[in-house]
Amino acid sequence: MRLEHIKGSPPNPSHFTVLVRGIPSSETESYSETVKKFFTDYYASSYLSHQIVYRASKVQRLMSEVENMCKRFKTVAVERETIRCRESSMPCFFCGGTRQSFTTLKETENGNSTTNLAALGLVQREKLNREECPAAFVFFKTRFAAVIAAQVLQSSNPMLWVTELAPEPHDVYWSNLCISYRQLWLRKIAILLASIAFMFVFLIPVTFVQSLTQLEKLSRTLPFLRGILKQKFMNQVVTGYLPSVILILFLYTVPPTMMLFSKLEGSTSQSGRKYSACIKVVYFTIWNVFFVNVLSGSFISQVSVFTSVRDIPTQLAKAVPAQVTFFMTYVLSSGWASLACEVIQLFALLCNIIKKFKPRMKDDSTNAVFSFPYHTEIPRLLLFGLLGFTCAVMAPLILPFLLVYYFLAYLVYRNQMLNVYVSKYQTAGRFWPIVHNTTIFSLVLTQIIALGVFGIKQSPVASGFTIPLIILTLLFNEYCRQRFSPIFKRSTAQDLIDLDRKHDQSQQLEEIYQRLHSDYCQFPSKFDNMPEAGHSDHHGDQESIIDPESVNSGNKSPALNHNLEREGSGGKEINEP
Amino acid sequence: MRLEHIKGSPPNPSHFTVLVRGIPSSETESYSETVKKFFTDYYASSYLSHQIVYRASKVQRLMSEVENMCKRFKTVAVERETIRCRESSMPCFFCGGTRQSFTTLKETENGNSTTNLAALGLVQREKLNREECPAAFVFFKTRFAAVIAAQVLQSSNPMLWVTELAPEPHDVYWSNLCISYRQLWLRKIAILLASIAFMFVFLIPVTFVQSLTQLEKLSRTLPFLRGILKQKFMNQVVTGYLPSVILILFLYTVPPTMMLFSKLEGSTSQSGRKYSACIKVVYFTIWNVFFVNVLSGSFISQVSVFTSVRDIPTQLAKAVPAQVTFFMTYVLSSGWASLACEVIQLFALLCNIIKKFKPRMKDDSTNAVFSFPYHTEIPRLLLFGLLGFTCAVMAPLILPFLLVYYFLAYLVYRNQMLNVYVSKYQTAGRFWPIVHNTTIFSLVLTQIIALGVFGIKQSPVASGFTIPLIILTLLFNEYCRQRFSPIFKRSTAQDLIDLDRKHDQSQQLEEIYQRLHSDYCQFPSKFDNMPEAGHSDHHGDQESIIDPESVNSGNKSPALNHNLEREGSGGKEINEP
Repeated sequence: MRLEHIKGSPPNPSHFTVLVRGIPSSETESYSETVKKFFTDYYASSYLSHQIVYRASKVQRLMSEVENMCKRFKTVAVERETIRCRESSMPCFFCGGTRQSFTTLKETENGNSTTNLAALGLVQREKLNREECPAAFVFFKTRFAAVIAAQVLQSSNPMLWVTELAPEPHDVYWSNLCISYRQLWLRKIAILLASIAFMFVFLIPVTFVQSLTQLEKLSRTLPFLRGILKQKFMNQVVTGYLPSVILILFLYTVPPTMMLFSKLEGSTSQSGRKYSACIKVVYFTIWNVFFVNVLSGSFISQVSVFTSVRDIPTQLAKAVPAQVTFFMTYVLSSGWASLACEVIQLFALLCNIIKKFKPRMKDDSTNAVFSFPYHTEIPRLLLFGLLGFTCAVMAPLILPFLLVYYFLAYLVYRNQMLNVYVSKYQTAGRFWPIVHNTTIFSLVLTQIIALGVFGIKQSPVASGFTIPLIILTLLFNEYCRQRFSPIFKRSTAQDLIDLDRKHDQSQQLEEIYQRLHSDYCQFPSKFDNMPEAGHSDHHGDQESIIDPESVNSGNKSPALNHNLEREGSGGKEINEP
Repeated sequence: MRLEHIKGSPPNPSHFTVLVRGIPSSETESYSETVKKFFTDYYASSYLSHQIVYRASKVQRLMSEVENMCKRFKTVAVERETIRCRESSMPCFFCGGTRQSFTTLKETENGNSTTNLAALGLVQREKLNREECPAAFVFFKTRFAAVIAAQVLQSSNPMLWVTELAPEPHDVYWSNLCISYRQLWLRKIAILLASIAFMFVFLIPVTFVQSLTQLEKLSRTLPFLRGILKQKFMNQVVTGYLPSVILILFLYTVPPTMMLFSKLEGSTSQSGRKYSACIKVVYFTIWNVFFVNVLSGSFISQVSVFTSVRDIPTQLAKAVPAQVTFFMTYVLSSGWASLACEVIQLFALLCNIIKKFKPRMKDDSTNAVFSFPYHTEIPRLLLFGLLGFTCAVMAPLILPFLLVYYFLAYLVYRNQMLNVYVSKYQTAGRFWPIVHNTTIFSLVLTQIIALGVFGIKQSPVASGFTIPLIILTLLFNEYCRQRFSPIFKRSTAQDLIDLDRKHDQSQQLEEIYQRLHSDYCQFPSKFDNMPEAGHSDHHGDQESIIDPESVNSGNKSPALNHNLEREGSGGKEINEP
């Protein structure tokens, strides 16, 4: 399906773009010149143009605050007039791709001229202060050339000229692009350690949840509850339902934490960030919900958890069925309830309500559209899969609940994907390997538990037949890793060249080439990070409208200032064709 | 140094060649046609030509036996005559690159006409029976194009069109080329399991060696030795020297076993086979010589080897010094003695002596030249490095012995490499990552032992300072992995393109292009595997001397048979330019 999607999807600017990081610094040349030199030298036949990424200087950050202030004033002043607010708020003032942004601002200039003048003054300074990042988007003529540039090691120092296929324009995570490539590996190690630490610190609420299932302990620690707990109904709620609710509430803090970790890790795209967070959350939930509950629930009184490797199947076969009631309520409380929450979109609803009481933020209403939260939903689905597999052997009563859950989930997620969430980027089945690996893990775990169960039941023939089953499952996994995994990591030459030929015939390429710069410059301002302005260096330049002489002659007139600002913010360097 | 070597080395046919495996089979086309179609379609600008690998059919195997018989007869008949034997035995009769092989055979035809006629008859049948393997060498015009074709995923089924840079012509391991790519991953898993099993089965001689150090046990099991063992000298020999000698004798079986494993694993080159064997032997020696000795020597009476992770440093700090006397004799017996053996080349000497008593094999005398046995020497050097590092903290008396060993080793190996061994292929520092990783492992182990030593000595400050040392060592390793490791796995675009330009200017390319086919066809017959005949499909064909019409018209005359045989064995298909 991934291959079909790749073959069938129309050409996208990201297909022709390579993100280059670790551009070596030179005393005599700017990064832009270095990039141009390198790629015209080594990829002369396929190199099209490039665009340097800029770091937001302090002045620029100040300006963005000024702009926000400006917007607020505008909306207050203009609110009862009939001027369309939408246009003034949508395009970036700083990356300034479209002319409208500027003209609408001019229309409201009379209302707040001082702010605007200050901004205009700042623009000049900002241009001087703006720093180039050692990162750039490089555009190629064909998809195959882009993939080659992304996959081949460029320089004899592997930490320079690091290339990868660029994310889609809406998917770029701008603030991480400026992180020096040298510190990325350190960040990754630090985040790995932090995630592991977080995984174990989280044990505290989980053990607290576990202690709640034991009523005596609770009434001893909180004596004032003793009266309430004596009622039969409360007793049932506390022992049966409350533990999983508290666990779920704690678990809601996990995805944002993991997203923060993935941000610090330095992902260059929103989707990459979600992918990385998704993996972390999967490990986290499987460890903290499944294993800790199974182990702490059953082994709490035993001294050694696993005395030897041979005992693991038997121990698991004893431990898992003991926790089945908890898992069943967990499926009800976390699974069914989360689907209901998903349908009513609690978070978006809350945002909307808050916004109604804050009329100044009305122009941000478009921001409330989210993309699908893969990093929270996939781990939950996989966890329920794991529960279903492992409980199937000893406690199959959980399966009808799961069946209902999966049926509802199919309906709900299908609806949400089609009608509610906006897909800002194509994942092209990128998350599938996570699903595959977790399912194989669940299967093997089930088979190990089955081994333990047959061992307890003293059926050597059945356990004898389970061992080849485990081996065959692992071999199947290995086969899939050989046969299917590579196409999730790399593009294939055959398909790419075929696609390039198709594009050549359909003559969509010219259109794409023209979109390249504007797409990697007009980034939406709705992400949490400030969009940094881009800088382009176009070979066959169709977009340079500014007279090059006027730019070189310096800032003399307001008209020139206007031009300069467009040039600086729009990032179009002038190149005579 | 690797980069300098790559930049400085002259162009080699292997630089322009890609080994393609997993060519999809087609009912209408031969593999050769499929390859030609694929590469002219997708790599039209850089594809030069290709050469299919052939499986030796049963008839061909019979023929090789006939040929061997033939040779023997020849040498017997010709021995006292003055005809040069060398020429008749060296070039392949089946791949038939040179004309001389045929003519010399004709000269001796009178002596054994029946055999030769049978062979001629067989050749025709052989041509019909010869099977194409789904593997081919594909030649490109530039090094960069070859690297691209080798690194990019070709097909949407990653088990078809598997490409990798070809080994050097003398380095190709022909018999493994015909292994279907589909079963390679299964073979790898099987060999991994076999190696692990072998590692643990080998424990038996090691524990036997350990038991020899305890005299009482020995005299109890072998009572007839009691008289001898009472002598002081014998006592010293048995406890001090014999254990390591026996261990070494057993260890001599390891490299051949690992080489056999690596062969079964399906390496496509001699060097790849040695590399794979080297890694296995390193793991093996470190586990079986170091850990088993340390653990079995000291923990034999304890029930649990490692009760908890926190105790490991203390346990190691106690165990390693206890075994130092054994390690010291090991350095003397294995290290110093092996250097002496290396200088006198015991194995080659023995081969030579045996050959003197078997005059029939005289023409194989060129085979006695070996290439450097990396897979036996590197693990030994690394093991001594590990011993030096780990014993340095508690028993530094081992260091002078190691110093002498390394000094001698430098002299001996330098001499052997320069004067004794023949380098059939360039490793270009390929083994360095093994050395690096093992050294880092040794360092970390030393630091862990130091931690244990400081713990025993109750010096919390010193142990406190050791922990950051371990972290820094691991970080250094990670840095090296990021900074230097990639260039051992992949070639860099910058260097390749620069080299391609240099070659273009120096006009060495034409010469290389002409050598490509002959180099990947005239494989020496001295390897243990039978050389399979190649089949070429040259675009700008300079070598087709045969009139195409005579080939198409069938086998009519002896002259035509002769031609046909040359065509079949030389593997030159005719293509009009």
